[in-house]
Amino acid sequence: MKKLRLALAQINPVVGDLDGNARKIIAFIKKARGIKADLIAFPELSVTGYPPEDLLLKPHFIEDNIKTLNRVRAASKGITTIVGFVDSDKSALFNAAAIISNGRLIDVYHKKHLPNYGVFDEYRYFRPGKRYPVYELRGINIGVNICEDIWHEKGPAGVQAHAGAELIININASPYHMGKASFREQLVTTRASKNNVTIAYVNMVGGQDELIFDGGSFVLDSEGSPIIKGKQFKEEMVTVDLVIRVKRQKGRGVQKKGAEKIKLPAASVRGQKPAIRIKRSSVMSAPEEVYSALLLGTKDYARKNGFNGVVIGLSGGVDSALVAAIAVDALGKKNVHGLFMPSPYTSNESFEDVHKLAKNLGIKVTEVPISNIFKTYLKDLKKHFRKTRAGITEENLQARIRGNILMAFSNKFGWLVLTTGNKSEMSVGYATLYGDMAGGFAVIKDVPKTLVYDLCGWRNAKQAGEVIPDRVLWKEPTAELKPDQLDVDTLPPYQELDPILKAYIEEDKSFDQIMKLGCDVQCAQNVIRMIDLSEYKRRQAPPGIKITSRAFGKDRRFPITNRYKSF
Amino acid sequence: MKKLRLALAQINPVVGDLDGNARKIIAFIKKARGIKADLIAFPELSVTGYPPEDLLLKPHFIEDNIKTLNRVRAASKGITTIVGFVDSDKSALFNAAAIISNGRLIDVYHKKHLPNYGVFDEYRYFRPGKRYPVYELRGINIGVNICEDIWHEKGPAGVQAHAGAELIININASPYHMGKASFREQLVTTRASKNNVTIAYVNMVGGQDELIFDGGSFVLDSEGSPIIKGKQFKEEMVTVDLVIRVKRQKGRGVQKKGAEKIKLPAASVRGQKPAIRIKRSSVMSAPEEVYSALLLGTKDYARKNGFNGVVIGLSGGVDSALVAAIAVDALGKKNVHGLFMPSPYTSNESFEDVHKLAKNLGIKVTEVPISNIFKTYLKDLKKHFRKTRAGITEENLQARIRGNILMAFSNKFGWLVLTTGNKSEMSVGYATLYGDMAGGFAVIKDVPKTLVYDLCGWRNAKQAGEVIPDRVLWKEPTAELKPDQLDVDTLPPYQELDPILKAYIEEDKSFDQIMKLGCDVQCAQNVIRMIDLSEYKRRQAPPGIKITSRAFGKDRRFPITNRYKSF
Repeated sequence: MKKLRLALAQINPVVGDLDGNARKIIAFIKKARGIKADLIAFPELSVTGYPPEDLLLKPHFIEDNIKTLNRVRAASKGITTIVGFVDSDKSALFNAAAIISNGRLIDVYHKKHLPNYGVFDEYRYFRPGKRYPVYELRGINIGVNICEDIWHEKGPAGVQAHAGAELIININASPYHMGKASFREQLVTTRASKNNVTIAYVNMVGGQDELIFDGGSFVLDSEGSPIIKGKQFKEEMVTVDLVIRVKRQKGRGVQKKGAEKIKLPAASVRGQKPAIRIKRSSVMSAPEEVYSALLLGTKDYARKNGFNGVVIGLSGGVDSALVAAIAVDALGKKNVHGLFMPSPYTSNESFEDVHKLAKNLGIKVTEVPISNIFKTYLKDLKKHFRKTRAGITEENLQARIRGNILMAFSNKFGWLVLTTGNKSEMSVGYATLYGDMAGGFAVIKDVPKTLVYDLCGWRNAKQAGEVIPDRVLWKEPTAELKPDQLDVDTLPPYQELDPILKAYIEEDKSFDQIMKLGCDVQCAQNVIRMIDLSEYKRRQAPPGIKITSRAFGKDRRFPITNRYKSF
Repeated sequence: MKKLRLALAQINPVVGDLDGNARKIIAFIKKARGIKADLIAFPELSVTGYPPEDLLLKPHFIEDNIKTLNRVRAASKGITTIVGFVDSDKSALFNAAAIISNGRLIDVYHKKHLPNYGVFDEYRYFRPGKRYPVYELRGINIGVNICEDIWHEKGPAGVQAHAGAELIININASPYHMGKASFREQLVTTRASKNNVTIAYVNMVGGQDELIFDGGSFVLDSEGSPIIKGKQFKEEMVTVDLVIRVKRQKGRGVQKKGAEKIKLPAASVRGQKPAIRIKRSSVMSAPEEVYSALLLGTKDYARKNGFNGVVIGLSGGVDSALVAAIAVDALGKKNVHGLFMPSPYTSNESFEDVHKLAKNLGIKVTEVPISNIFKTYLKDLKKHFRKTRAGITEENLQARIRGNILMAFSNKFGWLVLTTGNKSEMSVGYATLYGDMAGGFAVIKDVPKTLVYDLCGWRNAKQAGEVIPDRVLWKEPTAELKPDQLDVDTLPPYQELDPILKAYIEEDKSFDQIMKLGCDVQCAQNVIRMIDLSEYKRRQAPPGIKITSRAFGKDRRFPITNRYKSF
């Protein structure tokens, strides 16, 4: 029996904050040394944050990242540290893991499988690695690889296991979407049991623009059974005493191409190790998981960009209610400012619901009616718009006045404007550019309307007493930009709309396949047309949090100029 | 002596317009057959337009593209056609060239070198090819390859030449930036002379969102000397009678890995060939080239997206004057609508200059003063902004009122709003989000302010009589958002600013390198800080035309959340 005390540091770095990230990494190393861990592993690109995007094209950024790694190396006395950084050999960059033992850089592993789909652009920056070393620490053979590497059946893990690895440490910056955590665990379970190898999976935590890294690090034994599991969405150090039984299959030790063995000097850990608690964090329900992602994303966007307060236009509708609840949970009620901007089309119900919501959340609402401003616009535009009928122009104008007022409060008080549009609206363009789309961060941009209701329901059930007023959840959605307006005047009911959107946007289904969902032909054609025609709006939308398998933004790169017709 | 009549069709397809592109391709095939050409070559991905981006992820789009290729194949009777399309082998997609002879698909070449830098994302979609065939037509050995393939010294052209190719046909969708045309020719010259092979380079024409394809197809002989050259920025068919002297070097015919030879059935062209004119289009001056790119980009964005008219906010400044001139040249004066939106801070000079410009261009200007609306906002916000000083909030508000008015005209009359911000402003964030940044297309977004003046000078010199009023070119730039405001109150003079911007944004220079330009420390630090902090604005900016080696948009992918400090 061979033993190893392992610490997985699922940290929340900030992209570009080399100094801050180094301090965080070093603090966790100290913590690991405090419990006499033999090895601590950090996520992919912990030094730079992930994804650093085109910062990687700046040679001085790469140099500064190497200097930062050196600080980490020097601080890794008495322990083995595995940490993600950017390596460079002058002709190319590599997404790399430093293997540091007792203050010495022993080796560097280069990521082999570079994702270049979805939100990923790794071929833009990196060249794939070619070596799959196995390290020996306290008699245990360890293979290190990075994120996507573990997704490939014939990837480095197999080679390393074949070369004798008993433990694979896979370091990640794996972005969240709904259900990905369990998908990941399933996949790694297969990889562990097929290769008869223990796998430690350490994932980053935190929000970075559109992306959420959800943590949830875990260790599986060589049969694929879970040993420990870290929390989702929380920075923490997950620790475990690994026990590797000395029982190797035949064929082990035969080295494949690219494999080699490197011995790590075991740091001299004296005395008995203190007891550690084995954590097995519980699995979240679907709405709790999404809500937590939105909360972390909002908190980190505000915090990492230096905002103390946010301002939200509250309409009395369900979307702004959910965004306000998330903002209060993320930033505290004193940092959330509501604006209610009624027009003559605003109902009394909306007035009541806004104030009830604000009372429930404990936030202040400022009321700024838009009627005078709207009338002045109409008056000054009247002679230019003679002989035209009131319509979309006048509706958009109201939304844009509200956008201007929100931005005025943002400019005046330094608050971040959170927009409140959901994915269903963003998909079909049922939103006003520079109006309700005006703001710095779009919290629920990737949340379909039907899921908005589920999240509200979950949030309301979480605590005694009403949070989002009941009426908000059952009244008919309306933009209130003209008399008696309802969303269903323009769009199909959301229960019908959302499956079409998912099929077309997230699953690339053809029109014929979408018709098999049981849609009305006319309805499906209208929806697809609206999606295609709204690309120009989405291009100017603020970033928002990815929670589905395909979000708008860098996850879906569509031409604006596009004449392709699916039907 | 072996002879071949070659036609290079530098066409302007529309992304996704499979039917329209097929009709265009077939029309050019007919034209080529009309002059009894033996072979006609079309640009890269002519069938789908370039870049189709995530349309490529839709399986039915790929199928429709194959069906479209089949229409082209059937129409290619009596001629050999080389045309770019998307090939698919079920597990992967390929950026491909179809080699069609006399109505039969003889072979398909797969692009080997997939660009995945700058504006390119080809690894997102395609897998690299592995075959480098050589085709024989009328006794001439021909290698076909695609765009980036020719940039690599050890790429397919070398292999094909080594295997006996006497003519390389390289099909392109190569995006324009300043000076790229001459860079391309130099590079291909080297490739031709080093490999002792004639090279025909055919490039796409047209605007596609941010990109301009500039045409300028050419043929170089095996010594690298130019034989013909097509126009830049114009759709046309360039034709030449190639004469290949039967004189092969030693070592030719030895096949490298991936090389093979395929015989093309020569179509039976009877009778004498009609005379053709050999074109050698002249080289444009630098400002003419950029102006032409902006003109084509504006024209194609409007046309391909179905806009008949555009509306431009005219301030009396040089930026909006240039955009108006480009718009008139691109779309005709009757389709260009000027809006003049004075405030109390608007000078009499601005009033005069706007009207003089409009008169010179022959466009109508509508005047919509913003003072009443501005006062109403201030009145209704007064109690909320008590004890605060007027500042950026009030300045932005004026810009946003103008943005709203422009959008109201856009909504009412269906006109595309052209924004007028230049690259210098976009770089440092000297622009108001939802204000002067509001619009569908940002014509001079990638044009530094100093180049704006050059372009105006060139346009004025082009014809007798004033176009852009003289005073616009020499008066001090001002935003006129408060009394006596000048750009230099906030920014360094543009002659100092622009070199810093180029160094930092386009060349990834470090702070130390930028200091070597002779900048003031404080000034350079302020500029870099402003660039970094404005990323959130740029993310919500409309697309604009790339004319430099690195434009904002998909050419420069920067995190908003970013704490990296260069100094």
